[in-house]
Amino acid sequence: MIRTPAQYVESLRDGRVIYLDGERMPDITKEPKMRGVINAVAMTYHLANDPEWQDVITVEEDGDRIMFLWNQPKSVEDLVRRREVYKAGHHMGGRIPGMGPDAMAAAGVVAARMDKELGTHYTDAVEDFRKHLKTTDPAITGAITDVKGNRSLRPSAQVQHKDFFVRVVDRQKDGIVVRGAKVHISATPTANEIIVSPSRAHREEDKDYALVFATPVNAKGITLITHPTNLYGPDEEQVQWDWPTSGRGGGVSECLIVFDDVFVPWNRVFMCGEYQYSRDMAWLFGVFHRLYGTCGRSIEADNMVGMAALMAEYNGLERYSHIQEKLAMLAMHAQSIEILAMSACEHPEVYPDLGLVAPSISYTNIAKYMYANDHHEMTKLVADIAGGLAADTFSYKDWMNPEIRPFLEKYMAGKNGIPTEHRLKALRLVKDMVSGRGSAAVIHTEGSLAAQKMALYAYGDWERYKALAKRLAGIPGWEEHPVVKGFGQYPSKWVI
Amino acid sequence: MIRTPAQYVESLRDGRVIYLDGERMPDITKEPKMRGVINAVAMTYHLANDPEWQDVITVEEDGDRIMFLWNQPKSVEDLVRRREVYKAGHHMGGRIPGMGPDAMAAAGVVAARMDKELGTHYTDAVEDFRKHLKTTDPAITGAITDVKGNRSLRPSAQVQHKDFFVRVVDRQKDGIVVRGAKVHISATPTANEIIVSPSRAHREEDKDYALVFATPVNAKGITLITHPTNLYGPDEEQVQWDWPTSGRGGGVSECLIVFDDVFVPWNRVFMCGEYQYSRDMAWLFGVFHRLYGTCGRSIEADNMVGMAALMAEYNGLERYSHIQEKLAMLAMHAQSIEILAMSACEHPEVYPDLGLVAPSISYTNIAKYMYANDHHEMTKLVADIAGGLAADTFSYKDWMNPEIRPFLEKYMAGKNGIPTEHRLKALRLVKDMVSGRGSAAVIHTEGSLAAQKMALYAYGDWERYKALAKRLAGIPGWEEHPVVKGFGQYPSKWVI
Amino acid sequence: MIRTPAQYVESLRDGRVIYLDGERMPDITKEPKMRGVINAVAMTYHLANDPEWQDVITVEEDGDRIMFLWNQPKSVEDLVRRREVYKAGHHMGGRIPGMGPDAMAAAGVVAARMDKELGTHYTDAVEDFRKHLKTTDPAITGAITDVKGNRSLRPSAQVQHKDFFVRVVDRQKDGIVVRGAKVHISATPTANEIIVSPSRAHREEDKDYALVFATPVNAKGITLITHPTNLYGPDEEQVQWDWPTSGRGGGVSECLIVFDDVFVPWNRVFMCGEYQYSRDMAWLFGVFHRLYGTCGRSIEADNMVGMAALMAEYNGLERYSHIQEKLAMLAMHAQSIEILAMSACEHPEVYPDLGLVAPSISYTNIAKYMYANDHHEMTKLVADIAGGLAADTFSYKDWMNPEIRPFLEKYMAGKNGIPTEHRLKALRLVKDMVSGRGSAAVIHTEGSLAAQKMALYAYGDWERYKALAKRLAGIPGWEEHPVVKGFGQYPSKWVI
Amino acid sequence: MIRTPAQYVESLRDGRVIYLDGERMPDITKEPKMRGVINAVAMTYHLANDPEWQDVITVEEDGDRIMFLWNQPKSVEDLVRRREVYKAGHHMGGRIPGMGPDAMAAAGVVAARMDKELGTHYTDAVEDFRKHLKTTDPAITGAITDVKGNRSLRPSAQVQHKDFFVRVVDRQKDGIVVRGAKVHISATPTANEIIVSPSRAHREEDKDYALVFATPVNAKGITLITHPTNLYGPDEEQVQWDWPTSGRGGGVSECLIVFDDVFVPWNRVFMCGEYQYSRDMAWLFGVFHRLYGTCGRSIEADNMVGMAALMAEYNGLERYSHIQEKLAMLAMHAQSIEILAMSACEHPEVYPDLGLVAPSISYTNIAKYMYANDHHEMTKLVADIAGGLAADTFSYKDWMNPEIRPFLEKYMAGKNGIPTEHRLKALRLVKDMVSGRGSAAVIHTEGSLAAQKMALYAYGDWERYKALAKRLAGIPGWEEHPVVKGFGQYPSKWVI
Repeated sequence: MIRTPAQYVESLRDGRVIYLDGERMPDITKEPKMRGVINAVAMTYHLANDPEWQDVITVEEDGDRIMFLWNQPKSVEDLVRRREVYKAGHHMGGRIPGMGPDAMAAAGVVAARMDKELGTHYTDAVEDFRKHLKTTDPAITGAITDVKGNRSLRPSAQVQHKDFFVRVVDRQKDGIVVRGAKVHISATPTANEIIVSPSRAHREEDKDYALVFATPVNAKGITLITHPTNLYGPDEEQVQWDWPTSGRGGGVSECLIVFDDVFVPWNRVFMCGEYQYSRDMAWLFGVFHRLYGTCGRSIEADNMVGMAALMAEYNGLERYSHIQEKLAMLAMHAQSIEILAMSACEHPEVYPDLGLVAPSISYTNIAKYMYANDHHEMTKLVADIAGGLAADTFSYKDWMNPEIRPFLEKYMAGKNGIPTEHRLKALRLVKDMVSGRGSAAVIHTEGSLAAQKMALYAYGDWERYKALAKRLAGIPGWEEHPVVKGFGQYPSKWVI
Repeated sequence: MIRTPAQYVESLRDGRVIYLDGERMPDITKEPKMRGVINAVAMTYHLANDPEWQDVITVEEDGDRIMFLWNQPKSVEDLVRRREVYKAGHHMGGRIPGMGPDAMAAAGVVAARMDKELGTHYTDAVEDFRKHLKTTDPAITGAITDVKGNRSLRPSAQVQHKDFFVRVVDRQKDGIVVRGAKVHISATPTANEIIVSPSRAHREEDKDYALVFATPVNAKGITLITHPTNLYGPDEEQVQWDWPTSGRGGGVSECLIVFDDVFVPWNRVFMCGEYQYSRDMAWLFGVFHRLYGTCGRSIEADNMVGMAALMAEYNGLERYSHIQEKLAMLAMHAQSIEILAMSACEHPEVYPDLGLVAPSISYTNIAKYMYANDHHEMTKLVADIAGGLAADTFSYKDWMNPEIRPFLEKYMAGKNGIPTEHRLKALRLVKDMVSGRGSAAVIHTEGSLAAQKMALYAYGDWERYKALAKRLAGIPGWEEHPVVKGFGQYPSKWVI
Repeated sequence: MIRTPAQYVESLRDGRVIYLDGERMPDITKEPKMRGVINAVAMTYHLANDPEWQDVITVEEDGDRIMFLWNQPKSVEDLVRRREVYKAGHHMGGRIPGMGPDAMAAAGVVAARMDKELGTHYTDAVEDFRKHLKTTDPAITGAITDVKGNRSLRPSAQVQHKDFFVRVVDRQKDGIVVRGAKVHISATPTANEIIVSPSRAHREEDKDYALVFATPVNAKGITLITHPTNLYGPDEEQVQWDWPTSGRGGGVSECLIVFDDVFVPWNRVFMCGEYQYSRDMAWLFGVFHRLYGTCGRSIEADNMVGMAALMAEYNGLERYSHIQEKLAMLAMHAQSIEILAMSACEHPEVYPDLGLVAPSISYTNIAKYMYANDHHEMTKLVADIAGGLAADTFSYKDWMNPEIRPFLEKYMAGKNGIPTEHRLKALRLVKDMVSGRGSAAVIHTEGSLAAQKMALYAYGDWERYKALAKRLAGIPGWEEHPVVKGFGQYPSKWVI
Repeated sequence: MIRTPAQYVESLRDGRVIYLDGERMPDITKEPKMRGVINAVAMTYHLANDPEWQDVITVEEDGDRIMFLWNQPKSVEDLVRRREVYKAGHHMGGRIPGMGPDAMAAAGVVAARMDKELGTHYTDAVEDFRKHLKTTDPAITGAITDVKGNRSLRPSAQVQHKDFFVRVVDRQKDGIVVRGAKVHISATPTANEIIVSPSRAHREEDKDYALVFATPVNAKGITLITHPTNLYGPDEEQVQWDWPTSGRGGGVSECLIVFDDVFVPWNRVFMCGEYQYSRDMAWLFGVFHRLYGTCGRSIEADNMVGMAALMAEYNGLERYSHIQEKLAMLAMHAQSIEILAMSACEHPEVYPDLGLVAPSISYTNIAKYMYANDHHEMTKLVADIAGGLAADTFSYKDWMNPEIRPFLEKYMAGKNGIPTEHRLKALRLVKDMVSGRGSAAVIHTEGSLAAQKMALYAYGDWERYKALAKRLAGIPGWEEHPVVKGFGQYPSKWVI
């Protein structure tokens, strides 16, 4: 089924234990500070019911419509469409939460892998949960990042206590009891269910931390502590002028989730103790979720190119060669992210024995690295083109005051022919997008820069690379490499 | 004389015409949103009366104490001390406004230069104003950046009107009438007087724009439109926890200043029509003010190194080689800015015929370029070390709630032995400093990156450089260069 | 037909006028310094006759085998295979010259475009030349870069003379007479024919420079002045040790080609005077040839990753995190180039009205920019991992001297278990590849960095970008953009 | 005394055991391939006897002239002059070898420190050797870099043998016996004496490696294996045209030095077993020698700016804004290195208890890091401005051939008014300087990039940095820091 926006909002009145800025919220749907983030997720249900968008967001299955994202990706087409779904939400200014579906996709692969290699039956639980998703259409999120404590110590070696990573503390007949906390989990306050999975590889001594499960947000023992990122005022018109992106329908509510001895029934447990597979779960969630990241960032990058081109025009600068060079760099950045992410779908990881696929680990991580690593530099280019005014421009209330508006009209004009109002609105957009909100976040969201480098190192085909070098240098050993041996020896003459 | 903080605050009740967020403020000293910025400037008067600091901030002259900054720099020692004065303010969390004193220093050099070369008497006006500063101790600012209109057109070639750069519109017996607007002029709402000067070089057809003068802020025809950067709440303890730097005594109030036919008497006019000297005034203000910029940024850079080192420790990461490498890069950045700025004072521009000095144009611009250009990269390093929590950490009110505090205490702990409260406070400091407020501003403040490159190009000793290359390549012409000829020809053998 | 290597070598004895290091060469096949470059091209004929490779390099057509590269690309498959052909040559250590085939492909598109739009018949000449290629199997090159003179002046505005760009000086009944010079044209001394085309866009006053034609290398009036890049000694074993890549079968012979009133018959003229199409010819040659560039550079990048990984192992460093990080960066570089180039083929420019394709202008230019721009940084990483020894290692003759070999054996050992000889050979490979030969060249070959930025600016979809920003900022105008209007207005609320 | 060039050359005929490219050289002064490097060092003696230069290079002491470099630096002036001496050599195209004098300066500080703290008498040996330098005026070098073996293992933990780092193998009554090898030691074949010192810190188990001593090059048991970097032909005029810098008087002869049980008398032993001081010796040599590095690199950087400015002019490009921007970046690089190195002398490390100084560890390492790290980027800028011709230009013999010279004269012309010959010579200079010779070396010479970062980390004032952050964040502990406590608490209000 597909719920309506109203049904979704109603479902959030479920008695969850949630705090905002030090205060308990009895009903988040009544809380003005939550309005933006609830609204942003409600958009998904709106689009899914909208004739113009439902063929993107949903699929028909057994005569019913369900969210496309509930299904396990099995082909290049599934991956390409996955990006289209996510991008649709970003283009409409809201956000179709990706952490839940991405955790679900990763859990599907890992459960199948474990069942095949270990003879477990986790796929039964995964499919049971998938059926639940299709029939009840909840909002879901995925909880990965542990609070970690001393970052140089493994989970079971922590000093103050052993709960810095979520773990199983009791195995009972009907289910398990879990304890720990996950931090900066997007979209949790606006979710109905959470899929929890490990944030790192484990060794045998950490096997209690090798744990994947799903739970309702309002389960007994769960406490949420959240931060709104959308606190701008209620005046519609003012918000649209002053904070045209961050103030409208956007924002995330990052959340600390405390699991204080929460019970999880076995049909919601997708891994419990198989420590050798924690690494796969962490990497696979990473690659699915970084692909998600590319969707929003690709659109944001396009928007930044647009802002810069617009400001170049409004400032009368579009003929200068160094400005054109900077615009070209911005376009190169935006196009690189998009095509690398597309390539990650078109040249995916394929698991023929499982009949499943995942986005290419290399290309997804490169795309993610590129957007996070270059973000500050691109921001600098936009700020450079827009000029100092972007940091210090005028508000809606300034503009609406009849005493000062004539001065603003006269002096804030840019290139002749461009209405001053347009220039001021464009400057507010720049202020909103590049004045830095999130500039620290962009590095960490979907995994730090180091995580991408680790992924590239972990999955690099080093034997092939080294064989290539050995062949060139005349060092034996390359003839054994299945690919490189095919080139034969590098001849030293062909004819004379 | 030196005023008291109370006298300073009282002096701001002078009937000035000033708007904030679209509303006229009848008395800024009563306006809560202005509290932070007034407070920050009041600090100067506090320090100047404080026995511990007065010997830094003030000097004795003719039996009276006056601000050190009122005097024209004449030696290396004057420049070195100038930085000490500015740094004292930054170290105390406030800000001794530099634009006014820096404009005064530049005007002093340029007036002397014009008088010597053209036979004008601008130095008389400069000295008359200096006497006024010494006897009344006002807060002053310097207004440089014009609103510019179409950035590819010169002042007199603008299309919509001719007032995109401040100009003289009437020359009368007692003084002149000026029109135009200056934008993002720091500290204007909290100033008593403004020194206005050109933002670019001029040709003869733009001679009405070659204009330097001083005027009280409350002169008839002046309208101020300002933006507060310090709007954090009034609860002392909460502010200290949540916004430890930006929330306390800091902040600037950037301002648009409209000059709507303002009268300026001749004894406050320091240039009027000498278009050949606009360039000197713009560059010299630039170099004095970029030296000022190095004071704050050097301290901020030190603080950022400190934050990063502290977070490395609190996260238990200080033994990792890539963390040490990043800390080293941060320290290199901070030390480079400081020593380059120091070198700009120790190896200054010297004008022996005037008996005056200015900071080295090269080294000052290099220091400024370096801090602005590398700022985003350094921020990225700090964010990388601090971890995602810096973008998404907890507030004072979270911490004070007894229901959730035990969870925060337990789960937000980092390295064993470090109180969780310390880690949370350090994270808020990182959030406050690197979450991007001002990240666009840092590029533009004290002149854009392009301005520094232009300065280096404009003042580069290209004849020497080319002579060096010609000597190496055996191309004639180098023998005429006064320095390079001293090396003699590059010999091709010495002995065998 | 497909020639044999021997037939190819014989064809170079054709009386061409060619100089090397100031001396005329009567027969280049007898010249030891030309041995390497002739050998490298002869490889193409060897592979084309080799049963293992002929199905890559050649195709069957009308019962005969011909070079695959003679055909005009019409599909994604053609572009993908084009890279496979070029890569085969690079993998075997020689080089299948690309400038000629790339100029041919570009000329095919532009002739079809002109014929369609102007009613000319240039396609007849192109197809006549293509038939000649298929029946005689010559080695061809493409001459683009003009000598340019004063780079700030257009062709017809040059001062000393008007021949800084190749131009037509006489139009006769049977053909045309051309004059000028082309510089650093690879593979010319080893070619049989040259395709000449413009290096820039032209205006009407430059229409004599809008000129594309083919000519034999030994035509009357052509003088070649060349530079060998392969001068290493004749001792096979020594070369293999000391210069394992540059010394073996590789090298290019960049060439200045002087056209001193050369006659070209009309059936070899593919453009003459259609100045509006010079730009297309220059860009299209650029994009085909930059795709070629990606083939060699992708393989070279893989080889560099391999060298670095091997040296990390041989030095005992492969466990250090900063070394792994550097290896990851190298792998990211190599994989990015390859996948971007692949994407340029998979998402090509399509000209449906002509039935032709070209590599994507954006992705090809991004791939080329990335490899040229990052090359120095990647080299630095390899040098960093290999250590100082790579700059200062030992030669074959050092190693073969029985008096010093024991010292080298003992002291040049690296990680235990690795034969010293292997480490020394690996170090020579690093020396050969990163000691900088070509480090300036890599920036310019296939077009300077600026050329890629210009391409991205010239072909950027700025209207779309600006419409996206306008939609966000609420500035009218975006509703007219065909794509952006499809998103509809950005709503400010969905439900509450 | 000061020797003559002839005396110096004669002194090299001393029976040393030395190999070049696999062959023993009985007398290096007769070996054409050694001519360049001998000549380069002979320059020192020429200058020291030249009335125009002797007051820079030498000082008078006790009625005799001696090399300035023999004295231990004790003041800012000594350090500033030290750079002047080194720079004089670089400006004349030769090279005053710095490794020996720099090792001597470091050994002087460390011996004094050990004697003071441990009661040893190493200063006696240092002073005895200094007297020997003053009375016999030898050419000396300093041998630091060990061959290292497996780089992840400490000296005494190496597997194949224990001689990967130079060590003492026997302590006898009259002296010690040493074994091991040092690699890429510049200027050894042209030296008379070597000062050997450790390349790293040691622990107690490595105390046999804590070893500083001096020995003649021709001591029994020493074998040298060298590489010439100057092999260009003997034709003076051709060399000057083709290789204007590397071909004339320049070049270094990096060398492997094998110590095969070499006896060293006690009066040449400056450390033996004091493992706690190895680190000091390594760092101090590093900082003295990196200061030396700044001398040559500062001049080279100036020369590169000159080449770029000249090529911009010759190509007719000097009015383009992106070219000016690049020239400004090059000038910024050159000036930054020079002023940082100057600051390292003006703000040195001071050891008041010893009466000695050393260059500032921070500023010297920053200067060295900057020139090595930015070298590739600067090279790219020069290559970009010079154009592709710099990689592929013409030789002296091309130019002198009367058949092709008219073509070169006509077509290689650049901006009108510039003789083609000048442009071609400038292009050869670019080719010689940026075609990459040494591009790997520049990273490693005087210590790898990592070494500078380690130095900055090792000597960073982390307690001060962390106290600054704690003060800001309100975390207790900062009040104990001697400097930071002086700022007092950061007040939250000053007046209102």
